[in-house]
Order: sequence, then structure tokens, then C-alpha cells
Amino acid sequence: MKAHTEYLWFNTKKHREFINVTDELEKALAKAQIQEGFVLASAMHITAGVYINDAEDGLIADIEEWLEKLAPEGPNYRHHRTGETNGDAHLKSLLAHHQIMAPVTAGKLDFGPWQQIFYAEFDGQRRKRVLVKIIGE
Amino acid sequence: MKAHTEYLWFNTKKHREFINVTDELEKALAKAQIQEGFVLASAMHITAGVYINDAEDGLIADIEEWLEKLAPEGPNYRHHRTGETNGDAHLKSLLAHHQIMAPVTAGKLDFGPWQQIFYAEFDGQRRKRVLVKIIGE
Amino acid sequence: MKAHTEYLWFNTKKHREFINVTDELEKALAKAQIQEGFVLASAMHITAGVYINDAEDGLIADIEEWLEKLAPEGPNYRHHRTGETNGDAHLKSLLAHHQIMAPVTAGKLDFGPWQQIFYAEFDGQRRKRVLVKIIGE
Repeated sequence: MKAHTEYLWFNTKKHREFINVTDELEKALAKAQIQEGFVLASAMHITAGVYINDAEDGLIADIEEWLEKLAPEGPNYRHHRTGETNGDAHLKSLLAHHQIMAPVTAGKLDFGPWQQIFYAEFDGQRRKRVLVKIIGE
Repeated sequence: MKAHTEYLWFNTKKHREFINVTDELEKALAKAQIQEGFVLASAMHITAGVYINDAEDGLIADIEEWLEKLAPEGPNYRHHRTGETNGDAHLKSLLAHHQIMAPVTAGKLDFGPWQQIFYAEFDGQRRKRVLVKIIGE
Repeated sequence: MKAHTEYLWFNTKKHREFINVTDELEKALAKAQIQEGFVLASAMHITAGVYINDAEDGLIADIEEWLEKLAPEGPNYRHHRTGETNGDAHLKSLLAHHQIMAPVTAGKLDFGPWQQIFYAEFDGQRRKRVLVKIIGE
């Protein structure tokens, strides 16, 4: 069994941002030198998500609008009594889910033709991290 | 460490469909010949989900209605400018989540009494695939 | 490859309950004696979730209210024809997701500073279980 770990860092510039990390995961996988296994990509923050879907700009805008509709920004979160203002970003993280597990077969991400991995930032304008851990052989 | 990979194919006949894949995963596990490990079941499509819940027909209809309520079909998705008409199916995929990881203990899926694994198709009437990858020993 | 399995039992006293299980997972990890690997924490019930987010009481109340808003209690679930009354709890389980995979690096949960693991009960007042399976080396 081999293990390979990386931390992807992002300087998020906007409040909300969707970053395609598929290429970075493929590079990490090349370094890991495994043929069969699993790649975990997991946000290290509680106001961000990692999900798999299409790299189509219209859809990404649809996803952002939909997350805002189901988990809206607003002043009325109890969490804001702590001084925070990002209650919605925690709920968006739950909704988009904070992690994915990608299968590795014959040394490659074993994906369908349209599957791309996104880091979704919901409370940005700071440095942020995604953990990538690859286990296999 | 052993690895076993299968691709389950489905000829989905309806636009939306819920297929219990628990038996297929148990068969794959029997072939994998592992005692301890993980089974990843992951949709290879971005308009489908894989989830664990009850195999009760009323509940499955409730789940379908609920997904439609929170991620409705409609003409107003930006994604449709590409010629697609399935914006809702991408959002339903995010909501239901596209994958599960099942634990294997003593050669069996280590589940509670009611846990069943479903492939949920949200944009069907075509051949579709679920990746099953089993890693363990 | 080593495998370590535990079943965490909870006597849930309330209908809905959020239990921080991070310490229990760290204890299980210490017993597992692995340095690199994955920890799966998965509810063994279909009316419960396991998620990662902040251990802040206001936020937990926000999460409970939000889950109730998106997947409300009510009499009108088809599932209730079976005699059950917990249709909403199944939908809340889908929304919160029933499992997480935690990375292990150098023998520790490899988390960001605010990441805590919660068992979320949506149909309690009974004994409930979370499976913990640790695979690594």
C-alpha cells in the first residue's frame, strides 16, 4: 500500500468561486505512482465544498444561483451572534458536500467523459486549502 | 491490497428511474474476494446519483417528488443555452450526491438492516454506468 | 494493509440530536495503529446523517432549522402508508448525507482547524449506531 498526500492552496479572490481542480488531481496522481486505489479530495474548510459535475460555465452559474436559493445569505442566522456573517456558507457546504472520492484504475482517474472535480468556495477572499490523499498500489 | 473494478450498465427506460443495486454490489464483492475494505459505487454521469436509503416504494416516490421540488425542471437554466434541457438533472445529482462508500467487514457489506444502495437516474432513456471499485484485503 | 472496525452506539434521547463524534473517532484511530489511510464514519440508519462542520451551537441550531425547512415534517409522505411517520427524516438523511471519509496523515485526522464530525439523528429516542472503519498502514 502506498500513500501520497498534497495540499492544494488557492488565493480565492471573490466571495464565491468555483475552481476546476481536475488537472491538479491528475498531477498529484502521477506523482503518487499508484495503479489502483482511491483519491480523496476534501475541503479543509467548513464554508466550502468539493463536488463532481460539468465544467460548463452556464451550469456553474446555475449551481451558484441554486445554492443561494436553497441556502440564502441573510442576517438571521444564530451563528452570527459569534460575530461571523457566513451562516449561509456553512449550509452551502453541507448542500454541495465537502468531499469526493475518485477511483483510480490503471493509473488514471476512472471517470465518465463529463466528470470534472470542483472546489467551491462560499466565503472566500482568503487563502484556502484542499487536502488530496491518494491510497493504493 | 487487492483491487476489483466493475462497471454496471443500465438501459434506463424512463426519464427518471431509481434502481436498487445492492445485489449487484454484493455479487461484485463476492468476486473481489476481500474480507476487509471499502466499496466505492459512483455514477459515471453528472445527471445521476448513488445514495443509500430504504427500498420502500412510497419513500422512493417521496424522494423523487422532493428532488423535483428542490431542483425543478424548467426552461430557465443558463445551461440550456448549450442546447441541453437537463439543468435540473445536474442539480438533482448534486442534491442526491453521486457516490457512496460501503464498508466491507468479514467479506460482507457492513450495513444496518434497512440500508440499500440506489442508482438514481435523472436524465435517462439511454445506457448508463456505475463504477464499482473494491479495495481491501 | 490494516483494518480496524468499531460501532459507536448512542442512546438518543430527543427526536433530533446532533452529537460531536470527533473525539470517539480519534480514539478509534489511536487503537487502529495506522499512520496513513482513511476513516469511514457512516450512519447505519436511513434516518440519520454524518457530516463535517463547525461545533458552534448557534450554527447547529441553524442547521437543524434549515434541514426542517428543506425537508419538513408532515403527514403527506407516501412512506407513511407503511405506518411510519418519519418521511422527513429520510429526506434529511439524504440532504445531510449519511457518511464522511476522513483522511489520516502521520497517525492523526488530517483536518482543517474547524472541522468536526457530527452524527445527526433525525428520528431518535432509540439506540443508534455509527460504523467506523479505518483502513491504512
